[in-house]
Amino acid sequence: MSGNFARFAEVGRKIVAVGRNYRDHAAELGNAVPETPLLFLKPASSYITEGTPIKIPKGCSSLHHEIELGVVIGQKGTDISEGSAMNHVAGYVLALDMTARDFQSIAKKKGTPWDMAKGFDTSCPVGKFIPKDAVADPHNLELWCKVNGALKQNGNTKDMIFSIPYLISYISQYFTLEPNDIILTGTPAGVSGVKAGDVIQGGLAKLAEIEFKVVDRSGGS
Amino acid sequence: MSGNFARFAEVGRKIVAVGRNYRDHAAELGNAVPETPLLFLKPASSYITEGTPIKIPKGCSSLHHEIELGVVIGQKGTDISEGSAMNHVAGYVLALDMTARDFQSIAKKKGTPWDMAKGFDTSCPVGKFIPKDAVADPHNLELWCKVNGALKQNGNTKDMIFSIPYLISYISQYFTLEPNDIILTGTPAGVSGVKAGDVIQGGLAKLAEIEFKVVDRSGGS
Ligand SMILES: [Mg+2]
Ligand SMILES: [Mg+2]
Ligand SMILES: [Mg+2]
Repeated sequence: MSGNFARFAEVGRKIVAVGRNYRDHAAELGNAVPETPLLFLKPASSYITEGTPIKIPKGCSSLHHEIELGVVIGQKGTDISEGSAMNHVAGYVLALDMTARDFQSIAKKKGTPWDMAKGFDTSCPVGKFIPKDAVADPHNLELWCKVNGALKQNGNTKDMIFSIPYLISYISQYFTLEPNDIILTGTPAGVSGVKAGDVIQGGLAKLAEIEFKVVDRSGGS
Repeated sequence: MSGNFARFAEVGRKIVAVGRNYRDHAAELGNAVPETPLLFLKPASSYITEGTPIKIPKGCSSLHHEIELGVVIGQKGTDISEGSAMNHVAGYVLALDMTARDFQSIAKKKGTPWDMAKGFDTSCPVGKFIPKDAVADPHNLELWCKVNGALKQNGNTKDMIFSIPYLISYISQYFTLEPNDIILTGTPAGVSGVKAGDVIQGGLAKLAEIEFKVVDRSGGS
């Protein structure tokens, strides 16, 4: 694998996210644990990096943080085997899967798409690219999220239901994975609402910390 | 607006699709006409161009054609007004919004995302870029689709519920539109199932024709 993946958010084309991949989070929203990975997309236009605020989308009155481990793809693949999946990983990123929970609740009830609830501008705040070599075991990383200094989420990637190789293999049966794509691997329990003025901080073991401010969409950047 | 949009499918990052934008198609699937545009995403990895077959995704037993007018974005914009929306259009494309109807039916029933039903590899076959200047009125174009020579869909873009400027304005309130993004504007009535070996042809007035063969996913390309 070659290339510089630091600019994945600028050049990447696909964000595949996994829902309900931690048992405690599935339970807190009253959802069953899925038998196969629950996949959805976020568009590349939803990326922001530190220094740019998270904007509450128009009409949303329940914006939730979901702290997640992102996997950055380094090598193109379709029908990737679990055994070779890690060869397709360039590295990792600490990310937020910001979610308009009220939009999502309506979509779930009406059977309509989740994309406006999950893909609005600024819905994918990300930290810096973490090279694969810096991570001894991606399935044993503490993952936390604070709002205004108060701890809200405090999980560990060892509690993921579907492992990273399993996700890569499963996803690539439907969606060809390309360099600079990312996979958001799901969030542990503790998601909660944020409002304008709040500050969200997240951490991934000793590998990464991120901080994003929340503003009203009309509040500009 | 500058640039060459012929390569939109190679370099574009976002496909925003509109569901139920023709009254007769909403009715044929038993859906109400929406009050606001029903939006979903397809990933850039779903694009194919002529010469590459449509592959039936793994586990799908009801793959449907939906012939659609695509709008190719030429200029970046957020909160675009209806009045200035057409300034953001570079041109058009004739496209198929291939849909795993069985996956979608389950998603609608369970309230889960549509993305696997709509975004699998080869789910966005497209024709050649049509420059804006070549189209006198995008809201009066015949749009047809044949399977193995039999006419299945025969609509006109004048029957769209939400117009192109309205869609651009609405979408850009949630998803920043970027050059080479496309908007799929919905399909008229007549969607139907296709199977391996079938040939799908589509036409857009005198502007474009496309032809794609359907194969089993395991059948290779
Ligand atoms: Mg999530
Ligand atoms: Mg969706
Ligand atoms: Mg469609």
